[in-house]
Amino acid sequence: MSKLPHIGTSIFTIMSKMATEYNAINLSQGFPNFQVDERLTDIVAKLAKQNVHQYLPMSGYPPLLSKIAILVKNSYGRAIQPETELLITAGATQAIFTTIQALVEINDEVIILDPSYDCYEAPVLLCNANPVRVSLNDDYTPNWDRIEKACNWKTKMIIINNPHNPTGKILNGSDFKILELLLEKYPKITLLSDEVYEYITFDEKHISAHSREKLLHRCVMVSSFGKSFHVTGWKIGYLVAPEYLMKEIKKVHQFLVFSVNSICQVAISEYLDLVSVNEIRSFYEEKRNYFRQLLQGSKFELMPCEGTYFQVASYASISDINDVDFCKWLIVEHGVAAIPISIFHADGKDLKLIRFCFAKNNDTLEAAAKRLCAIQ
Amino acid sequence: MSKLPHIGTSIFTIMSKMATEYNAINLSQGFPNFQVDERLTDIVAKLAKQNVHQYLPMSGYPPLLSKIAILVKNSYGRAIQPETELLITAGATQAIFTTIQALVEINDEVIILDPSYDCYEAPVLLCNANPVRVSLNDDYTPNWDRIEKACNWKTKMIIINNPHNPTGKILNGSDFKILELLLEKYPKITLLSDEVYEYITFDEKHISAHSREKLLHRCVMVSSFGKSFHVTGWKIGYLVAPEYLMKEIKKVHQFLVFSVNSICQVAISEYLDLVSVNEIRSFYEEKRNYFRQLLQGSKFELMPCEGTYFQVASYASISDINDVDFCKWLIVEHGVAAIPISIFHADGKDLKLIRFCFAKNNDTLEAAAKRLCAIQ
Ligand SMILES: CSCCC(=O)C(=O)O
Ligand SMILES: CSCCC(=O)C(=O)O
Repeated sequence: MSKLPHIGTSIFTIMSKMATEYNAINLSQGFPNFQVDERLTDIVAKLAKQNVHQYLPMSGYPPLLSKIAILVKNSYGRAIQPETELLITAGATQAIFTTIQALVEINDEVIILDPSYDCYEAPVLLCNANPVRVSLNDDYTPNWDRIEKACNWKTKMIIINNPHNPTGKILNGSDFKILELLLEKYPKITLLSDEVYEYITFDEKHISAHSREKLLHRCVMVSSFGKSFHVTGWKIGYLVAPEYLMKEIKKVHQFLVFSVNSICQVAISEYLDLVSVNEIRSFYEEKRNYFRQLLQGSKFELMPCEGTYFQVASYASISDINDVDFCKWLIVEHGVAAIPISIFHADGKDLKLIRFCFAKNNDTLEAAAKRLCAIQ
Repeated sequence: MSKLPHIGTSIFTIMSKMATEYNAINLSQGFPNFQVDERLTDIVAKLAKQNVHQYLPMSGYPPLLSKIAILVKNSYGRAIQPETELLITAGATQAIFTTIQALVEINDEVIILDPSYDCYEAPVLLCNANPVRVSLNDDYTPNWDRIEKACNWKTKMIIINNPHNPTGKILNGSDFKILELLLEKYPKITLLSDEVYEYITFDEKHISAHSREKLLHRCVMVSSFGKSFHVTGWKIGYLVAPEYLMKEIKKVHQFLVFSVNSICQVAISEYLDLVSVNEIRSFYEEKRNYFRQLLQGSKFELMPCEGTYFQVASYASISDINDVDFCKWLIVEHGVAAIPISIFHADGKDLKLIRFCFAKNNDTLEAAAKRLCAIQ
């Protein structure tokens, strides 16, 4: 008997494989195809010869913890204690899995917004707890009424993802005010805030959940250097949590992975002295603007993109086949790989929408856009 | 409420911290203090400048999977399918946690031998399942009668650790024959075999559980390059399992960590072309012999050490305080850090035994031995 009977091969694996097979331009799985900053790769080359190859402390490399605390202070004005409120993880996925395992108990309910990235449900099920899906509004803003209706005395956690993958939406100040009022009524609920794209927001400034006075005592915030520094393969993430929650999270972390890759932790720690996170924002803002401009002449209708490196587009004026088949057709017939949005919906709802990753060099974006514009 | 109420700070963290504080020679936590092979660090320095910084496939870097299959074939004569029977993990700890989460269900029982390394119990508890401790014999061989008596229709898994941390014992052919007979009576039981020290055995050859005809269809074998290649900080492990179990394990892996550090996977893959695992065996055999010889003049009584890089010693003729206090005294008064064996016993049984790690350069071993021999 399977504990996760409905889980098949990840759509990211399927689409990336098919892209390779058909030699398509891969705008499916979210990872950059440009060179990593030379300053960062120089650091790795230098560190290889140093004494950075044995276990680091369980919570992370102490200088890295201190520098993240400074980054958090500079970004959100919040002072966190590196020893007790920060943990380095093997990517954001491990941070999320570990948090859920540490805090969610048998028969608890966990609210997951719909659509959402695919990694939240399985860890809840493995706790013998129940994921409760709540649909976003049609414009992908949270429907706070529906969320409030879903809350009850069994609700242990609400998971938000801000900026949101796949829709590119971000939460604004009034969203947070409503959320704060709601949570005041349910003291047992922990907020798990997946903010891996925290430094990739465009028109509005990102609001981090753990920077909100009324949330920080009950919020676990997750982020990842893979997204921010273009090194998705490194699997270095982190989480911020108040000490009483962190104590429980560390207990699980200790037996789940014990510690995280040493070279890459030390490298990121040194790199944080050289880089400004504002570079990331402007870098991706240009990419977004350029990619949207390139697609002007296409039949795809572009949805707003406020953050992340994903652009959602409607193909309704091109075809009415379902989005999974459309993505396969797009690879086979037009040599471009994307991700169907239906796979982010628990019920597989098909709105004729697909997701492009624009974390690619301009040559790639131009070549892909040329192919996409040729579809009439 | 805590899901793991009895878990405190890891003894490895406590002893390593205390060792630093008192400037003691650290023979506690198991990690090497000598230089990593230059051929391996050269590879890392070269790779830093290459395109190895994005997500690798979920199961691992394909060339690494193929090379592990060759290594397994050469070591044990067993042919495994790299695509379906192998998984790269963020260290052996993640492999063990993931396997237990994938296979153990609510109210199942899991047999853990006692004493044992400390990472097996928590993942069982997090599955809402029950760890069942079975004591080893006084000479640290398995007591198969007691193990058989502990088996029943609720038993889902037996966990073995071979070579065994902390005792340094290895299982022999007749152990495996008894185990095979026992398992024939219980078709539901999966064997989880933690073999992270598979290439560190001395007088007898290591028998891998998954090389046994009668076990391979029901065995998950876990190993780690951290131990074999002196890079404990890299956190690159792997597991071998038959496809029907691997399918379930990969479902959890996908949402637990998705993929594993890219640079270090590629580096190990290239290094496997240059290195022979027999080097590891002879390297550590010399260390074991040398360390034991250095301690001849001490009042510690040395237990046999058949594998791992740990030496267990009795201090009964020196003191009758408990082993945790003895280890603290040893740091404070004599400047050597070790690990008390009682922490590996579920009931904290104190047999006046401590564990030294001899994965250290000869200068360190000599300096430590000098201090240990001075204790009269
Ligand atoms: C972990 S693979 C998926 C990468 C990603 O974040 C995405 O494409 O949404
Ligand atoms: C994961 S820290 C402990 C290292 C180790 O394997 C040991 O010392 O037993």
